[in-house]
Amino acid sequence: MNKQVRWQGERLRVSLYHRVEWKREEGKGVVKHVLLAKFKDSTPPDQIEELIKSYANLVSLIPPMKAFHWGKDVSIENMHQGFTHVFESTFESVEGMAEYVSHPAHVEAANRFLPHLEKVIVLDYKPTAVHL
Amino acid sequence: MNKQVRWQGERLRVSLYHRVEWKREEGKGVVKHVLLAKFKDSTPPDQIEELIKSYANLVSLIPPMKAFHWGKDVSIENMHQGFTHVFESTFESVEGMAEYVSHPAHVEAANRFLPHLEKVIVLDYKPTAVHL
Repeated sequence: MNKQVRWQGERLRVSLYHRVEWKREEGKGVVKHVLLAKFKDSTPPDQIEELIKSYANLVSLIPPMKAFHWGKDVSIENMHQGFTHVFESTFESVEGMAEYVSHPAHVEAANRFLPHLEKVIVLDYKPTAVHL
Repeated sequence: MNKQVRWQGERLRVSLYHRVEWKREEGKGVVKHVLLAKFKDSTPPDQIEELIKSYANLVSLIPPMKAFHWGKDVSIENMHQGFTHVFESTFESVEGMAEYVSHPAHVEAANRFLPHLEKVIVLDYKPTAVHL
């Protein structure tokens, strides 16, 4: 984020708050949960939309889950290996992540979600900035 | 992020700035670039560290690349399919992402980085929040 000093006025101010927030989260040991997916051809778009909403709704059901974002692949490097969707959740700690994995709301959502996937990869990581 | 209202005092204040920042980035069309990797057994740890630093250094060389974070997989669900590292970069737009892909500094770094990978997947996505 060091190039943010090039920006002016309010943008710079807000960015600095963003950095404060990030440092706090990093100190707390925030964990990012990344799920890559390819849905089966047999799952219609409106059902995919419903499954994504159910996934997002876990934020309101599982306390250590702090945020959820998703998007379709738009990469141009042709290294996506057939995966089409990214789902990223943020957890407050490794312990919170474990609580999520065993939480009944997650288990139920996963049992509905996973059968619609042709391909899936899940990684968790503690995001670390590199100080050069 | 809606559960942040449960938090108190300064934490809440900073979180609101974070949300403002996020909304701006979302409006601008920020793109997340996610690279999953498994390094070859033949690449020693100090060389992996050097490769990660070179990757991170692209932030200072390629203007539309705004942030870089990485971490080793700590997942407990056994769905990582052998991948061990996550690298996440943030770009200001799809156009900025394309500029990165063809930038000589990226091409050179990729040419050094990729031969050390046994497995690699790259997806880009515009992170979207779900409003329930």
